[in-house]
Amino acid sequence: MAGLPSSGGIPPSADRAQPAYGAHLLAYAGIPSFMRRPATRELAGADVAIVGVPYDGGATSYRSGARLGPRQIRAASTLLWGYNAALGVAPLEVLRLIDYGDVAVQPGDTAQTMGAIAQESGVLLAAGLSVVALGGDHSITLPLLRAHAARYGPLAVLHLDAHADTWAGPPDHSTTFRHAIEEGLIAPASYVLVGMRGPLWAAEDAIAPRELGALVWGADECLTLGIPAVVASLREHLAGRPLYVSLDLDAADPAYAPGVGTPEIGGLTSHQLLQLVRGLRGLRLIGADVVELCPPYDHGDITAVLAANLVFELLSLLALQLKGQQP
Amino acid sequence: MAGLPSSGGIPPSADRAQPAYGAHLLAYAGIPSFMRRPATRELAGADVAIVGVPYDGGATSYRSGARLGPRQIRAASTLLWGYNAALGVAPLEVLRLIDYGDVAVQPGDTAQTMGAIAQESGVLLAAGLSVVALGGDHSITLPLLRAHAARYGPLAVLHLDAHADTWAGPPDHSTTFRHAIEEGLIAPASYVLVGMRGPLWAAEDAIAPRELGALVWGADECLTLGIPAVVASLREHLAGRPLYVSLDLDAADPAYAPGVGTPEIGGLTSHQLLQLVRGLRGLRLIGADVVELCPPYDHGDITAVLAANLVFELLSLLALQLKGQQP
Amino acid sequence: MAGLPSSGGIPPSADRAQPAYGAHLLAYAGIPSFMRRPATRELAGADVAIVGVPYDGGATSYRSGARLGPRQIRAASTLLWGYNAALGVAPLEVLRLIDYGDVAVQPGDTAQTMGAIAQESGVLLAAGLSVVALGGDHSITLPLLRAHAARYGPLAVLHLDAHADTWAGPPDHSTTFRHAIEEGLIAPASYVLVGMRGPLWAAEDAIAPRELGALVWGADECLTLGIPAVVASLREHLAGRPLYVSLDLDAADPAYAPGVGTPEIGGLTSHQLLQLVRGLRGLRLIGADVVELCPPYDHGDITAVLAANLVFELLSLLALQLKGQQP
Amino acid sequence: MAGLPSSGGIPPSADRAQPAYGAHLLAYAGIPSFMRRPATRELAGADVAIVGVPYDGGATSYRSGARLGPRQIRAASTLLWGYNAALGVAPLEVLRLIDYGDVAVQPGDTAQTMGAIAQESGVLLAAGLSVVALGGDHSITLPLLRAHAARYGPLAVLHLDAHADTWAGPPDHSTTFRHAIEEGLIAPASYVLVGMRGPLWAAEDAIAPRELGALVWGADECLTLGIPAVVASLREHLAGRPLYVSLDLDAADPAYAPGVGTPEIGGLTSHQLLQLVRGLRGLRLIGADVVELCPPYDHGDITAVLAANLVFELLSLLALQLKGQQP
Amino acid sequence: MAGLPSSGGIPPSADRAQPAYGAHLLAYAGIPSFMRRPATRELAGADVAIVGVPYDGGATSYRSGARLGPRQIRAASTLLWGYNAALGVAPLEVLRLIDYGDVAVQPGDTAQTMGAIAQESGVLLAAGLSVVALGGDHSITLPLLRAHAARYGPLAVLHLDAHADTWAGPPDHSTTFRHAIEEGLIAPASYVLVGMRGPLWAAEDAIAPRELGALVWGADECLTLGIPAVVASLREHLAGRPLYVSLDLDAADPAYAPGVGTPEIGGLTSHQLLQLVRGLRGLRLIGADVVELCPPYDHGDITAVLAANLVFELLSLLALQLKGQQP
Amino acid sequence: MAGLPSSGGIPPSADRAQPAYGAHLLAYAGIPSFMRRPATRELAGADVAIVGVPYDGGATSYRSGARLGPRQIRAASTLLWGYNAALGVAPLEVLRLIDYGDVAVQPGDTAQTMGAIAQESGVLLAAGLSVVALGGDHSITLPLLRAHAARYGPLAVLHLDAHADTWAGPPDHSTTFRHAIEEGLIAPASYVLVGMRGPLWAAEDAIAPRELGALVWGADECLTLGIPAVVASLREHLAGRPLYVSLDLDAADPAYAPGVGTPEIGGLTSHQLLQLVRGLRGLRLIGADVVELCPPYDHGDITAVLAANLVFELLSLLALQLKGQQP
Repeated sequence: MAGLPSSGGIPPSADRAQPAYGAHLLAYAGIPSFMRRPATRELAGADVAIVGVPYDGGATSYRSGARLGPRQIRAASTLLWGYNAALGVAPLEVLRLIDYGDVAVQPGDTAQTMGAIAQESGVLLAAGLSVVALGGDHSITLPLLRAHAARYGPLAVLHLDAHADTWAGPPDHSTTFRHAIEEGLIAPASYVLVGMRGPLWAAEDAIAPRELGALVWGADECLTLGIPAVVASLREHLAGRPLYVSLDLDAADPAYAPGVGTPEIGGLTSHQLLQLVRGLRGLRLIGADVVELCPPYDHGDITAVLAANLVFELLSLLALQLKGQQP
Repeated sequence: MAGLPSSGGIPPSADRAQPAYGAHLLAYAGIPSFMRRPATRELAGADVAIVGVPYDGGATSYRSGARLGPRQIRAASTLLWGYNAALGVAPLEVLRLIDYGDVAVQPGDTAQTMGAIAQESGVLLAAGLSVVALGGDHSITLPLLRAHAARYGPLAVLHLDAHADTWAGPPDHSTTFRHAIEEGLIAPASYVLVGMRGPLWAAEDAIAPRELGALVWGADECLTLGIPAVVASLREHLAGRPLYVSLDLDAADPAYAPGVGTPEIGGLTSHQLLQLVRGLRGLRLIGADVVELCPPYDHGDITAVLAANLVFELLSLLALQLKGQQP
Repeated sequence: MAGLPSSGGIPPSADRAQPAYGAHLLAYAGIPSFMRRPATRELAGADVAIVGVPYDGGATSYRSGARLGPRQIRAASTLLWGYNAALGVAPLEVLRLIDYGDVAVQPGDTAQTMGAIAQESGVLLAAGLSVVALGGDHSITLPLLRAHAARYGPLAVLHLDAHADTWAGPPDHSTTFRHAIEEGLIAPASYVLVGMRGPLWAAEDAIAPRELGALVWGADECLTLGIPAVVASLREHLAGRPLYVSLDLDAADPAYAPGVGTPEIGGLTSHQLLQLVRGLRGLRLIGADVVELCPPYDHGDITAVLAANLVFELLSLLALQLKGQQP
Repeated sequence: MAGLPSSGGIPPSADRAQPAYGAHLLAYAGIPSFMRRPATRELAGADVAIVGVPYDGGATSYRSGARLGPRQIRAASTLLWGYNAALGVAPLEVLRLIDYGDVAVQPGDTAQTMGAIAQESGVLLAAGLSVVALGGDHSITLPLLRAHAARYGPLAVLHLDAHADTWAGPPDHSTTFRHAIEEGLIAPASYVLVGMRGPLWAAEDAIAPRELGALVWGADECLTLGIPAVVASLREHLAGRPLYVSLDLDAADPAYAPGVGTPEIGGLTSHQLLQLVRGLRGLRLIGADVVELCPPYDHGDITAVLAANLVFELLSLLALQLKGQQP
Repeated sequence: MAGLPSSGGIPPSADRAQPAYGAHLLAYAGIPSFMRRPATRELAGADVAIVGVPYDGGATSYRSGARLGPRQIRAASTLLWGYNAALGVAPLEVLRLIDYGDVAVQPGDTAQTMGAIAQESGVLLAAGLSVVALGGDHSITLPLLRAHAARYGPLAVLHLDAHADTWAGPPDHSTTFRHAIEEGLIAPASYVLVGMRGPLWAAEDAIAPRELGALVWGADECLTLGIPAVVASLREHLAGRPLYVSLDLDAADPAYAPGVGTPEIGGLTSHQLLQLVRGLRGLRLIGADVVELCPPYDHGDITAVLAANLVFELLSLLALQLKGQQP
Repeated sequence: MAGLPSSGGIPPSADRAQPAYGAHLLAYAGIPSFMRRPATRELAGADVAIVGVPYDGGATSYRSGARLGPRQIRAASTLLWGYNAALGVAPLEVLRLIDYGDVAVQPGDTAQTMGAIAQESGVLLAAGLSVVALGGDHSITLPLLRAHAARYGPLAVLHLDAHADTWAGPPDHSTTFRHAIEEGLIAPASYVLVGMRGPLWAAEDAIAPRELGALVWGADECLTLGIPAVVASLREHLAGRPLYVSLDLDAADPAYAPGVGTPEIGGLTSHQLLQLVRGLRGLRLIGADVVELCPPYDHGDITAVLAANLVFELLSLLALQLKGQQP
């Protein structure tokens, strides 16, 4: 019998404080921790932590508002049932998942915020947990990569995004992946960027990610060739290394993800994003983030629902992996 | 000459009371009965009735608000012109269509409401009319199936939905099709479910519809194989029996249908829904419902416009059928 | 016992076609004619007609969209119960009210539209009905005044509005009252403008209405002195003549009426508008319009609800009058 | 030094699980329990519990959606700082407040839901806590009154509302106070209704609350005479008995509270509601609810912010009382 | 180094008045002329002019509001960077682009407005500029075609639209292309209509465009066969003549373009529109319009972002052409 | 004859580049510089500059989004006609007003942004212009005060706000006025704070502004005593010194200003804000800002319309002053 949304392994005493207590089977009831998991900083016995990073000070290009992203993804997560039929796993029956709450961001101070993110996620990783972070803008990924590379060594990275975020400049939401490569956080020839499109600052920007060693699948190629071809290619490219997935919701078309900071037309559908994430099955996923949800523009909460579901797919992958490791 | 939006067969005296009287060719003018048809309970001479069921008390999973669905579908229907070029028919030139108004639902009392739906639709069927019902949440389909099966015997049912609605439990929006099968309203091996997807309560839920005898086309299969293959399959499965179509708007992706009670990503496009409904041409359609429009979340009314158009396609099928029966 | 929403005097045969038939006591159910009254053009036996004028081509200053006003006021009217406790009357028990539907406006042709409004309202007046018109932009008032003056002679007019609409120029939404005065539709010294405020085109505009003979109560005076003083003044000014009330919803502050074409800050509250309309009790009201509802900007439908209630108050005044005339 | 948002007396171990942990001073960060208080069912040592009742099946008149009310009030509560300068108290420094989560409502089953509300609030009261409930529609108040009367005996009740909710009929959102009076939950001559207005079903409805013994201050009187006079009157009326406050947000005008199920124009301002609630200082407040927040219509969340602030004022009153009892 | 968004050839003195002056690299800063180009009527030295036509009086079928379209497209254009990687060109480095501002439309007077459009665009064409017009409703295209045909002779026209706009009747938004053909503005066998779909007034409407000589690619064919086939066909059809592109945003599905006047389901995706426009490369583009953006229904501005990007693609085509002509 | 919206003194050559050129009298047409004034950095001959400061990185407490404030105030300003009847002046006939565009803010870097604001406004002041700044969050006021104090010496300051913004800490949106006082930018006993209310961090916060020397009129006092009393008091307090007005839009109640970063209930009405600003007539106004407009939450743009009108009133005051100085 499906144990959801019970505690799935976290000790009863922690579950006692579950914010969803009462009316616990109704999607609209209760206090919205992620999938109603215990909101706790007791790490003992936990496998994975959901970590919010409510920061939108990373020089967001257009609209601000991503600070409210973690709260809204959590609210949408209450819609999620527990069994992933496509991947054949009920992640919360396998994973002991906690909702860590939010990192102590410092509004208006990107440097200090990055420090806090790296420090707090480092503590979680050191305690043996995996981290799935909820943004916030894309500047939050750099310290997450730093913490993960510190623990796992150079990473393979799958980056889903309309924008390359490989400009040169101080760390912010547009320079994340250049810094990550230059700091050696990403292993050579282990970086794949999927979904890039739209007007660029200059012709150089089209080449920059490739010059940095990325395998780039533009959105136009994805839509023309189909996702299975893309998946086959990226699996080959990313196999064998610890894999971090950074998922900027603007990889989706604005029809599917209106609530993002910098919408670009010609993007992926929600089904294509599902295909991409599910296509990672069997790779060694070690961490992930879902970023750039901008709730004030997210009519009918459809982007938040998309984000929550993509987190659910990532958790399913982590569960499959954990299951695979079990004797 | 196109007779729209004239009365198309309903006697002039009934037309005299047409709510749209005055300014009658402008989509935004007049009182919005469905496609400006007479709002009447005079059944004599009519072929098809649009019937609203403004009920959202059937234990809707997440968002309430579907009670305002019938009103909003009617408003969007004023955008519909009369000729269906894809199917080659002007339904209102063939069908004598009335807008029956709304069933006497009892808010907060699902049992009594179901009785009223069955009773009122039974009267319409007994008078020789076909019924196209506008929901309301999906709990309204069970009494509609009861009334139709009472008249036509066990039915073939095409169920378009993200969710199977085959849980066990008392009649509500999540148990409709289990009850329908267990009550014998649906003929054996005559039930097709298209569009299922999303997190499930438990692994059993993935199997349940099939155990109940359903042919299931998940959304992922639909999107991967294409609708023509699905249509060929379901035509074979559903042929020969009186066919009832129950269309939950969450079969569509939230991008195409944000205004639903329980949005699920990875769904169908509006074009795919058109392909599915038009693919029923030649089958023996005897009734239908379009449910789960949740207007408060339907920005720009795009879900209401989708719903109204799908009703138009269903009416076109009924018209083709009536035409085919004519000497 | 309160007869609402029964037909109140309209013969049963007309009531048979009542759009709200079925589920008739629920505010959200049924086809929204005004207060669920019969939608009919049978005038015999009726006292008052609600007449929609879905026209926004009268050179609206800023936002267009008022064409959807009549439909939205009708939808909001389903929220209205029948007894007006403030005025001590149940208007639909006294008045035989019909919903005439909409005038045959001609989009993009103000002259022809004005002709249609004058002609159709003239027919209604000739049949002995009173007219309460639902706009549409303020250009619709001129032909309404023409029809009323043709029947009643020079009128007293109470004009509630943020803007004077007394510019010189061809008939449109900004010149209505200058034309009305120059054409002799308004009796000398029988015109009161309440609610004027906001930046003007030029200093002359502040004087223009007064030069045309208006008694002007600016919004600032209303808010400073209080409505009772305004009511006392306008009663004195308007007494003795047949009174037409033209109510532009932008008389209300944008907080109370966001859904208007030309919002002006510093306006009246909904309670103050109620005080003003109720303050007309005992004057000889012969017709009215409520205009400039612009639904696309009317979040939460609060302006539509305001409009529907103000129509209800106007109907209550008409009912009191009819009652007073009865032996 | 202000201890907010620390635990204010709840043992540190409970605080450890505080959903807001991390980023804890930022209004937009963290998991939104009410004012970031521990979400727990450990009652020992607590003084007051916030209790959500996410139920909108009580035959709501017009719009459904109040089920999402508790979640949205909690989210808005993160905007609240801790010191109430008007009342001179920091409630969380005085009260040990917990967020109990939501009652186990049963969608579509009002009777069972009412049982659950009465039972769960009874447990809280028995443990010595005060309850402030967050609705949900107004049907939730009857079982709350039952639980409070069971503990405190017949109550004094202050009811802020546009509607009397004194119809005869089975328990739902429109009959609450008739049942409460007839069941003896409210002491004779101890019921005050403030804010009543709008069209009524019938003339009898205007009299019904008074016939049931209510002191009625209509909205029109409140707005004309001013709140200080109302406060003086109701204090006199309600003094001496344990006082329960039931606050339907539609007491406010739709300009101030667009997000309600049944908006009525001519209502109170937010400042007037503050005056009313603060005017209760010194009376013996023993419990309260804030109901009818309907988030899908609450643009810019202004009604949720109003609701959260009114809860804060009620908590401040409870804190003053507790302080007064301390030696 | 990419020169964007510098003046790209327009003399510095004109650039001095650039509305975006200050904060010039931030998408949300500055005064939104199109892509921050100089807002000027100095035509000397300019190649292309963006011209707004804020007119929605052309008998729009359903929703009005397109008058605010030009302003909103300009605002969204500030999101556009300068390099088009798909077409390999930075249009503003090649083209000297100005923002001409808006044509002197006359609200409520279609005939005079059409005269102004033809006259003002004629002046621009005579000065050697190309025009890309921003609507406004589709009635604005007829005078634009007149001005272009006056300069270039009979045109090839690519018309992207859900609706044929080939009704008979006086010039308005539904008759544009019949007039254009009958006036000889379009060369025989040089008119392609892509995207047509939805209910039609009558069977004749399905044939009318073809009878007028159009090559019609319905939306259903586009979605079934894929855009590359459509592109191949229309290139063959349109080659060799000066090409005018008229792009009604309702060619896109409402999921991608909710903010249009007359939404039709079953439409194109944003990627398909990109494929279509980019597929014109090498044809002799001489002018274009993008019409029917209806901002009040455009939640999250996604339709405006689509429109701005499509203008960017059209500018890129013009730039490639100009480059090709350079020695 | 009123010269609006002509150039009012700016030389014709500058006017030539007016972004609104074409369709210039229609509120919805043209490129929205503030009131269609020339967007220019030519300062010669100008009296007043509108200066946008699109910055929301100043540690905004709750919602971000104020960066889009200047653009939205400019758009709303196109609704403003030229004559202020309440103050008897047409400001643009007296003042030579330019729209300077936006300051070169640096997203995510408050210190650098403050430097840019001080520097650029200093240049404008040095050129003899007055500055009216459009925010942006409230952190922008500190550098504006620095620039003004540098030119005028210690200032009198009228601060309209729900929040005192007098916390201790580094310069951000919550510490502005403490810094201003401690830096000596505000003259002793020359600081008035109007509109303060809402929950405070701690009891000290209620006292802090007074300890810093402020005269504080809380919102409750304003609403209870009426604005005329407040105006009399603040005129006495502020007379004789150069006066700077800093107007945080959250001084208004959320009903009147939903689109702000930190809404507080119990606030002022739009009429009361007009009374306050107009009450400054005769004082020596030397500069002003209007801040905290947060467009994503500003439904129906009512807060933007409020902001634009308040700027218009401030410009009227400046015009009266200039007129008074003329011989």
